[in-house]
Amino acid sequence: MATAKGYAALAAGAPLAPFTFDRREPNEDDVVIAIKYCGVCHSDIHMVDNGWGQSVYPIVPGHEITGVVTAVGAKVSRFKEGDRVGVGCFVDSCIGCATRDLDREQYMPGLVQTYSSPQPGSDLPTYGGYSDHMVVKEGYVLSIPDNLALDVAAPLLCAGVTLYSPLRHWNVGPGKKVAILGLGGLGHMGVKIAHAMGAEVTVLSQTLSKQADGLAMGADHYYATGDAETFKTLAGTLDLIICTVSAGIDWGRYLNLLKVDGTMVLVGAPEEPVSLNAFALIPGRRSLAGSMIGSIKETQEMLDFCGQHGIAADIETIAIDQINDAYKRMAKSDVRYRFVIDMATL
Amino acid sequence: MATAKGYAALAAGAPLAPFTFDRREPNEDDVVIAIKYCGVCHSDIHMVDNGWGQSVYPIVPGHEITGVVTAVGAKVSRFKEGDRVGVGCFVDSCIGCATRDLDREQYMPGLVQTYSSPQPGSDLPTYGGYSDHMVVKEGYVLSIPDNLALDVAAPLLCAGVTLYSPLRHWNVGPGKKVAILGLGGLGHMGVKIAHAMGAEVTVLSQTLSKQADGLAMGADHYYATGDAETFKTLAGTLDLIICTVSAGIDWGRYLNLLKVDGTMVLVGAPEEPVSLNAFALIPGRRSLAGSMIGSIKETQEMLDFCGQHGIAADIETIAIDQINDAYKRMAKSDVRYRFVIDMATL
Repeated sequence: MATAKGYAALAAGAPLAPFTFDRREPNEDDVVIAIKYCGVCHSDIHMVDNGWGQSVYPIVPGHEITGVVTAVGAKVSRFKEGDRVGVGCFVDSCIGCATRDLDREQYMPGLVQTYSSPQPGSDLPTYGGYSDHMVVKEGYVLSIPDNLALDVAAPLLCAGVTLYSPLRHWNVGPGKKVAILGLGGLGHMGVKIAHAMGAEVTVLSQTLSKQADGLAMGADHYYATGDAETFKTLAGTLDLIICTVSAGIDWGRYLNLLKVDGTMVLVGAPEEPVSLNAFALIPGRRSLAGSMIGSIKETQEMLDFCGQHGIAADIETIAIDQINDAYKRMAKSDVRYRFVIDMATL
Repeated sequence: MATAKGYAALAAGAPLAPFTFDRREPNEDDVVIAIKYCGVCHSDIHMVDNGWGQSVYPIVPGHEITGVVTAVGAKVSRFKEGDRVGVGCFVDSCIGCATRDLDREQYMPGLVQTYSSPQPGSDLPTYGGYSDHMVVKEGYVLSIPDNLALDVAAPLLCAGVTLYSPLRHWNVGPGKKVAILGLGGLGHMGVKIAHAMGAEVTVLSQTLSKQADGLAMGADHYYATGDAETFKTLAGTLDLIICTVSAGIDWGRYLNLLKVDGTMVLVGAPEEPVSLNAFALIPGRRSLAGSMIGSIKETQEMLDFCGQHGIAADIETIAIDQINDAYKRMAKSDVRYRFVIDMATL
């Protein structure tokens, strides 16, 4: 065992505070990582608050992790000391399956999430990236491209792949019209990635207050959803809408913006029910779908894609003792566009 | 103008009664059809009752029409007097489009439905198949395979293609596990067609009362949705669910039966909102979709497929003066599995 330092919530909704805990000694297939940066995801707040009813306390949140390898187990072949690496939303998968499903492991029942998740062979939950180091199986460690700084790369590990995966799955590319609903931590990654894939990108945001940012990120069009005209102008024009907002919306109104055979994909999870009229789907063979992060294979593919296209997150760096204030600001959407904790401040 | 006889509702919810009206003289591209049989679709009841708020009165319902050609216009090349033909849910499409979208015309804004639909160049709505004859553009007339009798073929024109189209669109075939939710007029066609496509077919019905019928139609499995065990047994096992019921159901419970990347398709349209939790979609990349009838091209393909596989509807033939009673029985699901009006009784 090695002692780790971090920040944790000890109960639902409790403020995060300094916390000392144990990390396992590395096994033969483990990589030990000195954490340099950790992005702050909306999921962290939901989990600290037990908004999804699945949290295990104490929680050390954080699943947008970048750092540097400090040691590797004897059987680790892909990483060595000094390598720049990342860890995303899960640290094991397909437990109990005959083979690991490399393409869809994030949907398999054996998924072990990076924090607040039961893990095989331990009574303790997993502890995440708001900490000084972690020990992760080689197969769940990602390589960060040389041209991406570790601070701006951190949000790629969740926000990046959460948008990349559905954009790839629903075949986004030249000739496709894609809308990103919500320009926050997830949405701003979606705009950059969809643009780099060659799509015609529309941002749908409550107001035009972030329009200049959205266009600079690569959006071709920017519309306010607070303006009823938007829904007339765009009716029946979009191939794909990625919904990154986790508040309740008028679903039928957005589905109506899709072409025949268009799809709206939820990547944010509203706590209240999604309600719509069947006629929002039937007369255009439209689909409402969900998508959750991406596989490790896909995450590495996304990181390489972002390296090639020079894509990283727009961030605001904070010290770890600012984390509770950061959560309050995120609740008001007051961040452009992702908080990233500088772990040197721990 | 030629005088036509039929049955019509003169106002929302009024009983159907004998009605005399005019049909247009055939144009150069028109086919005149002596109607022999007309299937009775749930849509007919919804439309008579103005349940979807789009009805135009008087309504002569009926869009599962089979008959025999009695005359053709000068430019008609594919049909001649005596041919056995069908007419489905629409009689014109893509009006105002540069070209007719042969694959997806049922979703185009210019669709002219077979009855109660405004039509270009006329102040009158279209009148449907509860009548003695009709005049239809050649491009919207279907050929009935020689081995299918006109009475049992009639329901193929709506119920048949409504199931065939999504089964084809979502790539049903050998190795695919498909459930048909609801064993009524639509559902029983779905079981027969999915089975003929080579899929493993499960019927989900409220009780086991129609189990023997379902298995005889080609179902491999039959489960009661009134039994909570069904939802444990089938969790995560299905590639595709076609929902033919138009009552409200617990959507999340059914979505949970899908595998990763599975799709649930609505072909029945509940009048109340569809409500579900986002987590019914996100953690399995599942989709909820809608599908509406099929194109003319696809309808002919379906008829040919049914001819090859000897598939037709299970019907109960009625006289036209039994139509109001038939509607009452359909409201109680008391029909196995489609009423078909023998138009010789008009």
